Amino acid sequence: MEITNATDSLLVDLYELTMAAGYFEQNYNPWVCFELFIRDLPPNRNFLIAAGLEQVINYVTHLSFNQDQIEYLRSLSNFKYISDDFFRYLHNFSFSGNLYGVPEGTVVFNDEPLIQVEAPLLEAQILETYLLSAINFQTMVASKSARIYLAATSDGKKQRGVMEFGSRRAHGPQAGVLAARASYIGGFIGTSNVLAGKLYQIPVYGTTAHSWTMAFNDEITAFQRNYEIYKEDTIFLVDTYDTETGILNALKVSLDFKGIRIDSGNLIEEAKKARRILDEQGLDKIMILLSGDLNEYKIDEMIQEGTPVNAFGVGTQVATSYDAPTLQGVYKLVELTDEKGTHYRAKFSPDKISYPGRKQVWRFFDKNSIMNHDLIALNDEDFSSEAESLIQCQIENGQRVQKQVSLVSIQQRTKKNLSMLPESLKHLRSDHPYSIKVSKTLKTLLNQLQNQVQNITHD
Amino acid sequence: MEITNATDSLLVDLYELTMAAGYFEQNYNPWVCFELFIRDLPPNRNFLIAAGLEQVINYVTHLSFNQDQIEYLRSLSNFKYISDDFFRYLHNFSFSGNLYGVPEGTVVFNDEPLIQVEAPLLEAQILETYLLSAINFQTMVASKSARIYLAATSDGKKQRGVMEFGSRRAHGPQAGVLAARASYIGGFIGTSNVLAGKLYQIPVYGTTAHSWTMAFNDEITAFQRNYEIYKEDTIFLVDTYDTETGILNALKVSLDFKGIRIDSGNLIEEAKKARRILDEQGLDKIMILLSGDLNEYKIDEMIQEGTPVNAFGVGTQVATSYDAPTLQGVYKLVELTDEKGTHYRAKFSPDKISYPGRKQVWRFFDKNSIMNHDLIALNDEDFSSEAESLIQCQIENGQRVQKQVSLVSIQQRTKKNLSMLPESLKHLRSDHPYSIKVSKTLKTLLNQLQNQVQNITHD
Repeated sequence: MEITNATDSLLVDLYELTMAAGYFEQNYNPWVCFELFIRDLPPNRNFLIAAGLEQVINYVTHLSFNQDQIEYLRSLSNFKYISDDFFRYLHNFSFSGNLYGVPEGTVVFNDEPLIQVEAPLLEAQILETYLLSAINFQTMVASKSARIYLAATSDGKKQRGVMEFGSRRAHGPQAGVLAARASYIGGFIGTSNVLAGKLYQIPVYGTTAHSWTMAFNDEITAFQRNYEIYKEDTIFLVDTYDTETGILNALKVSLDFKGIRIDSGNLIEEAKKARRILDEQGLDKIMILLSGDLNEYKIDEMIQEGTPVNAFGVGTQVATSYDAPTLQGVYKLVELTDEKGTHYRAKFSPDKISYPGRKQVWRFFDKNSIMNHDLIALNDEDFSSEAESLIQCQIENGQRVQKQVSLVSIQQRTKKNLSMLPESLKHLRSDHPYSIKVSKTLKTLLNQLQNQVQNITHD
Repeated sequence: MEITNATDSLLVDLYELTMAAGYFEQNYNPWVCFELFIRDLPPNRNFLIAAGLEQVINYVTHLSFNQDQIEYLRSLSNFKYISDDFFRYLHNFSFSGNLYGVPEGTVVFNDEPLIQVEAPLLEAQILETYLLSAINFQTMVASKSARIYLAATSDGKKQRGVMEFGSRRAHGPQAGVLAARASYIGGFIGTSNVLAGKLYQIPVYGTTAHSWTMAFNDEITAFQRNYEIYKEDTIFLVDTYDTETGILNALKVSLDFKGIRIDSGNLIEEAKKARRILDEQGLDKIMILLSGDLNEYKIDEMIQEGTPVNAFGVGTQVATSYDAPTLQGVYKLVELTDEKGTHYRAKFSPDKISYPGRKQVWRFFDKNSIMNHDLIALNDEDFSSEAESLIQCQIENGQRVQKQVSLVSIQQRTKKNLSMLPESLKHLRSDHPYSIKVSKTLKTLLNQLQNQVQNITHD
């Protein structure tokens, strides 16, 4: 599975294509801008970590339709009113517009555009489904994993790593690959997913499963067989039958191995007991790895309790973002230019305001480099003397303009961003939402537009 | 993206491969049986619908490792103790064992084996990650969608369809494709996901987005442009500005169109108002389609309230199984045969009992063909005179032995299975869990094994 290849161009909701066909038949293809943003922060989230942009750029710059895909579309009754010319258009399709995005690893919030597409209407419309599914999922997982990373290192021990073990519970085989990528962005040290390791140069980790121990007639034989192969790199999984006995069995096999993993029971107590047994033998270099349905809350409790732990393995909870398994990402038309000029678009329902026009997000910092507030402004407003802008051009006239950055440097950006977060937002629960302001110009534009539309509605 | 191709063979947790390498180096490759089952029903689920077997069969019968993949593995320090012979083994790998599985669309419960792999230990081990992620996700979504299907048709109107619209919120682009497949298995009439339509011959559906309306300067122009192309097949999205005005605008454009979609507001009230307006014009054939963060609970309420609705669009809630976004599927060694004979394996922790040996699930029915209880027995026990067996051979000596069945016939199996469910299990909430019994022979075997292992532990 490659994340993007030709077949991906049908990874799209039908209505993107039937709308595109409708616009085509109407010969209506104005220059537009769509913005992708997250409507609300999900429960238990004080911030998000932007992720998925690389997959978006790859998709947008490679999107095309081959004959087989076009034949399938033509076979659908949904296109029975559509002329051959539209399918010729699809056959020659390549993205010709501009795409702007917040770099992966950046702290972001609700209502802030993560992606902007400026293009002819047909092109911008066709991208919607893929962009949303790529950004929603990876941003969700990167955000969850950043919380787990913060919890795991909350006592200042930055070398205490968290590994992603969630492929078996991710939403299908491919979701596991992207979850590994996103959790690495969020601060994890690596993954068990081998394909993610290969595709994204993420360190891969693993120990053994209970089945290794159960494949032999007793635990000590299983440990011996394991050690004979993996020697001082061996990590013994000690909880198959009884954790304390497991540790003692490991010590019967060798005093020179890498670590033990405990995957069940009261992990705080088991880890303390394990550390005591190991330290009594002078084996303070042997690592303790803990796993078993962990999340940021359990890890936070462990760290508060002074649990001796060198690394965590986290699976289901990060790969599914278990307590908040969806992000409300939306893709909204904000601007349209036809022969009469530029028209702004917005939504005014009392519960669902969205602002018009292509925007920029400006981040203001305190003197000590801690984030103070964000300001959402129209793109042509300039606050560069006081603030940093988050949105950057990624694709211009269909061509990628920024070099692909390594996942390691994206993770470094995350860590730098997290170091600038106000302390209250680092807490697992927070009563102090971050301040996101809207520029006066943007507010005025929204009001003008609201009046115009009310006039239309009351015609 | 194809669901299985060569690259997929690295869609695996590293430890499956390092354990396989360890077994290989030890020249230890006994014939084993692993079983995949769901440990507990998730919250709010009275039953599950088995799904994902087709992807499993496809994966297992095509699994191989190419040179590029092997080079990557060799480059990992995790394999530094492993001989070239193991990589030659991988290079020549193909699955030679047997695989048994419950057909997709079957009602299943916790602790019942959904997949069994009988093979040399190395082969069985390598399959674990992919099998779990394929079965966990699709079974989860099929189960959720079956609940939604039951709610949507609870007044007996079987023709009221539910469409899957969740790709944008699924866990990555490929999860949307599998979610479409699984929700079709669960009883949905189709999906918006075009690739799923093409790959699995699922009917594809779509209307228009709010962006269509907003791309024109007013709603009535947008509706005219839509109708000019799609004529009597047009479904107008009427809630962009004001739902009632939207319906009246649609009626100004034509009295002969397919339907309207309402995506926001109080859907029960809006649908009743819409039906009244349409019926007053004698337009009782015009359909009402409702969408907007729907789930089985909201749909159930709508049906109870007599909401006039012809079809539902359900997205996020089904594609992410929002209220239960993971299944606790596990893959456990239950049997191992070496030169000394057959050894059974099981887990006895007070909270995590798993039974030994390869099993069969027998389903007992009442006289009126309603499910009465299931019996989990050892595979060589026979209850065929009183009950139906659920697990069938799918792969024998590496070769597929059952023809691929169409997704339509899998959906028919689901519907037939749902019609045999006890009424209490059809309720969205249930206090009467289904009775799952364990055969005496199996209980005796577990006890014997428990005594043996206690003897080992207390050696």
